[in-house]
Parts: sequence; structure tokens; C-alpha cells
Amino acid sequence: MGLGEFALIDRYFTRPARRAVLGVGDDCALLTSQPGMQLCVSSDMLVEGRHFLSTVAPQRLGHKALAVNLSDLAACGAEPLAFTLALALPGTDDAFLQPFAEGLWALAERHGIDLVGGDTTAGPLNICITVLGQVPAGQALLRSGAAAGDDLWVSGTLGDARAALECFRGTLALDGGAFETLRRAMELPEPRVALGQRLRGVASSAIDVSDGLLGDLGHILRRSGVGARIELDAVPRSALLAALSPDVQRNCLLRGGDDYELLFSAAPGRLDEVRVAARDADVQVSRIGRIEAGDALLVVDGRGQVLHEHARGFDHFAA
Amino acid sequence: MGLGEFALIDRYFTRPARRAVLGVGDDCALLTSQPGMQLCVSSDMLVEGRHFLSTVAPQRLGHKALAVNLSDLAACGAEPLAFTLALALPGTDDAFLQPFAEGLWALAERHGIDLVGGDTTAGPLNICITVLGQVPAGQALLRSGAAAGDDLWVSGTLGDARAALECFRGTLALDGGAFETLRRAMELPEPRVALGQRLRGVASSAIDVSDGLLGDLGHILRRSGVGARIELDAVPRSALLAALSPDVQRNCLLRGGDDYELLFSAAPGRLDEVRVAARDADVQVSRIGRIEAGDALLVVDGRGQVLHEHARGFDHFAA
Repeated sequence: MGLGEFALIDRYFTRPARRAVLGVGDDCALLTSQPGMQLCVSSDMLVEGRHFLSTVAPQRLGHKALAVNLSDLAACGAEPLAFTLALALPGTDDAFLQPFAEGLWALAERHGIDLVGGDTTAGPLNICITVLGQVPAGQALLRSGAAAGDDLWVSGTLGDARAALECFRGTLALDGGAFETLRRAMELPEPRVALGQRLRGVASSAIDVSDGLLGDLGHILRRSGVGARIELDAVPRSALLAALSPDVQRNCLLRGGDDYELLFSAAPGRLDEVRVAARDADVQVSRIGRIEAGDALLVVDGRGQVLHEHARGFDHFAA
Repeated sequence: MGLGEFALIDRYFTRPARRAVLGVGDDCALLTSQPGMQLCVSSDMLVEGRHFLSTVAPQRLGHKALAVNLSDLAACGAEPLAFTLALALPGTDDAFLQPFAEGLWALAERHGIDLVGGDTTAGPLNICITVLGQVPAGQALLRSGAAAGDDLWVSGTLGDARAALECFRGTLALDGGAFETLRRAMELPEPRVALGQRLRGVASSAIDVSDGLLGDLGHILRRSGVGARIELDAVPRSALLAALSPDVQRNCLLRGGDDYELLFSAAPGRLDEVRVAARDADVQVSRIGRIEAGDALLVVDGRGQVLHEHARGFDHFAA
């Protein structure tokens, strides 16, 4: 992007660092690590048509690009510290960059984190963010800690983002107000950062639901060497989703993706602590099933009938 | 990339972590920070046509994508620790991924660093790497420390990568052997990681030459509030470049880019230490001029005639 690159970084992406020793403007950013803490790192790349639609408002895209990364920190129970932003842009368009930066900064400031570096270049639109967080050594929530008998929990509600996508695809028709609400869920996910931190020492495993409940649960099951049983009726859903057909609900809830809620396991004896963590974080949590021995992932209806059964993972899941 | 994504990460981008507590496979990677150290972070995004040509061999592209990031750590005097890789790919093509991963891992292993996480997605080819390194607190080399009277140094030779680009563009014609040598400089840059670390406490400022000598020197001058005088004849060049016309040489040396050599300043009294650092790192270094008071960036020829003059920066430099 030549000359434009430095002006663009100055204009939109440079603010004084609060936590970082040195932010944007040198070859590297510098961060001081705190004793007894481990550093958590995650990178996500967003591409048009895969992770967002061309119709998304730039402000919401700025929010979402950072939100999906913060959601990875939330899933580890980490406190966010800083992030880098690498951006490929077809052109330097104020009408895009100004609101994009606003959406990004608004979320960054709510979580008190610095943009410490990055890169801009000309190219097909691509947004790559790397987030850095910290967690007390040995206390990160992992995918690998679920044990048979643990309760299975999820935050918020699932499926609205997928329902919005179906509206965009034309396979679902809703009135304008309903569509806008679902669209908001898809475009403005709220990373469960506070909940993740409060679940340290309480949850036995955690992941954020980005690829759909069954897919992401599969990661926990494989890593933990266990199976699970989900009660479909217990999977939390919005009133809007609950008004749609059972097939649409089931598809959106189980295979939705883009939810960015936390899916976690906790021993039954931790139930009260889970409820306190959720209350402190001001997030609803729902018990949706149980971790079981073996490798089967079962979904059952209200009468205990098995709706789906699969050996862990989602690769060949026929939902 | 759906199902393919996990298989792809397993196949090409997962190896046991050596330094990281937890590498690829959870929501975040975990790194343990060492007491007294600061963390250095840098992200670079590579796009076809801007940072590499479609003709580059995938193995070399894998090398270069990591090399340009390690070069940022080198410019800060940091010890590399780990990196994340986010990759947008038009398709999952073994013929590309296998050699790309080989080139990447070969360089990573030479520097003893872990690939700790990342992301793969379908999309126009885009490679985004974030590197993490460490430096003793307060000892990072910055762009801001140059002082009037300091010598100005550069490692290796400059300009070969630009000469190769001119061959690709058809503005320069060389025989096959010469072209291959220049092309190697462009496609397989060697990040000066060892030199950067040895220059801690010796150099007063440093940057890596990625955008061209004048442009990158401009960053040091602006950040340090000084000017500089460069002796064009002292700027190190390969025998191949030295055989080309004076105009081509000058353009490639001053405005080349993609050199990934270190440009640094050091007080004259540090001369012996600079030479020892270079010898220890097994890298040639050349004194190419001096930092001066004021804000002029002068380039002079062997008779002291001013070839170029500009107030810092390169934005309007008429080379």
C-alpha cells in the first residue's frame, strides 16, 4: 500500500498503549509479562464469504473480527491483554475504515486491551487478528479435562446466527424486526470473557462454540477421551428461534456455528459455583447434558429417544 | 474449509511443542514467560503480487513468510520463541502445502521456535504470521535511540532482491546464473536474528530493511529526531549488483526493499563492539554513513557531492 500504509495506520489504528510498554510504531510491540502468569495466544483470519457477508456494516465487522478472537481467550479463561491486526484491503476507503476502526476500538476499550501492532497491505479483503491474554500458570481452561459424570453447560442461547444466515441464503423467511434481531446475533457476537475467567477452577473443560455445538463438543470429547449425551430440549434458544419449525431449530442449535458462546463441563458438585460464576459475569448458563464414558455423542429428545448418535467428532455426523 | 481444515492442520502444521506449554490444538496456545523478560510481538501479512510472485516455489514462500517476521524480532534484538500461522488458501493442494510447510519448518527449526497456533480458511491466498520473542526488560533495540554523531551501519548487502524484481518485471536482463542468484536473495532472505541479539547494548537504534534503505532509515530519523548522511559508495552490494549500471545500483541500493538486513546506529566508540557482534553472528557489517543533527537525509557520492537530499522520511523522496 506504499505511502498510504503509514498514514492509514496513524489515522485509524494508533492510540496510546495503556498496558503495553511499546505499542504500534516500532518493529515489534513490547509487553511486560507478569510473574506466575502464562501467556495465551490465538490467531483468527476472517475472509469475506466465509466468515462474514459483503452486506455486513463495517462497524459490525470491526467488532466481530476482534470478538471471535476474544472468544478464544474466553474459552481458556484468560484475561485479554493486547492484540495485533493485519489487514489486506482492496483500497484505502475511509467509508470502510472509519467505521471498521470504530467497531474494533469500541470492543477493545470495553475489554481494556491495546492494539499493539500489525500490518496493512493491498489485497483481497482479509482480517487477521492475534490476541494475547494471560492466565495464572496451570489454570487455563482446556478442551482436555472433561470427565464422565460432568455436567455439560452452555452460555447464552445458540442458533440465532445460523438462523440469520439461513435468511440471507433465502431458505428461511422472517419479518424485518425478527430478521434484524437474528442478524445482530450473527454480526455482533459478545465474547464471554468475564464468564471464562470466572470458570477457572470450576469448569473441567471449555471451548467456544464457533463451528456449531456438535462440532465443538466433538473437540472436547476427542481431547478428553469421553462421550456425551445432550438433551435437545435443554439447549437454550431465543424466543425467535423457538418459534421456528423443529427441524430448523434442531439444525441451528446443533450445527449452527458463529455462536461464540462457551460450552463447558463441570463436575455436578460444582453446580452452585457455576451458577455464581454466571451471575457474576451477568450471563445466563444452561445445563444441556452430561459427559459419559465411552465415545458416543448422543442427542436425545424429551422422551429420551435418541435423535442422533455418533462416535465423537462431527466429521461424519448426519444431523 | 470445513472438514478439511482439521486434517490439514494435523498433517502439515502440528508438531510437538518444545518451548510452549501447549501448542496447536486448543483454543489458545500457552507460553510461560520468563522473569525479567519482555515479550516482543509482530505480525506480517503476505499477499500474492505484493510480497511474493506467483512464480515463487512454495518451499521458498514458506521460508520467506516466517523470515520476514523473524526479521522484525531481529530488529528488536529479541530471541524468537514461537509463532502463529493464519493461512487463507484457494484450495487444499498437497503440491503447495507440503513444500510450503517444509520451508516454514526448516527455518523454524533452525531458530528453535514452535508453531503454537493459527487458523486455516478457504480464500484468496494470504499468509499471516505473528511472531513472539523475548528480550531482557528495557534492552530492546528501538527505532528511537539514534543520536547525532552515531555511525550508521548495515548488515550483509542491499539491493539484490530489488534487482531480481526488475528482472521479473523485464526492466533488467541478466544471464540465467546471475538471475538465479538474485532471485535467491529475493525469495530466501536470511533474518539477522543472531546479529540483532548481539547488538543489544551496542546499537543505539535498529530497524530491518524491508521497504528500502531510505524509507526505513526515515523511520529511525523521525523516531529519533535526527538527520543522516549516507555515503553511497559505502553501501554494501554484491558483485553482481556492482556490475550493473550506476543508476540501477543506486535505485536498488536506496529504494530496494525486501533486503531484510539490519540497519542500525551505534556511537563511534562502539565500533569494536559492533565488529565483534558481527563476527560472533557471522554476518558482514558495513559503515555506510553517520547520524547528524537536524532533519536532513543526505546521500553523497565519493566526492562528497549530494545526490539526494530530503527532510527525513521517504514519502516525497525523489531518488
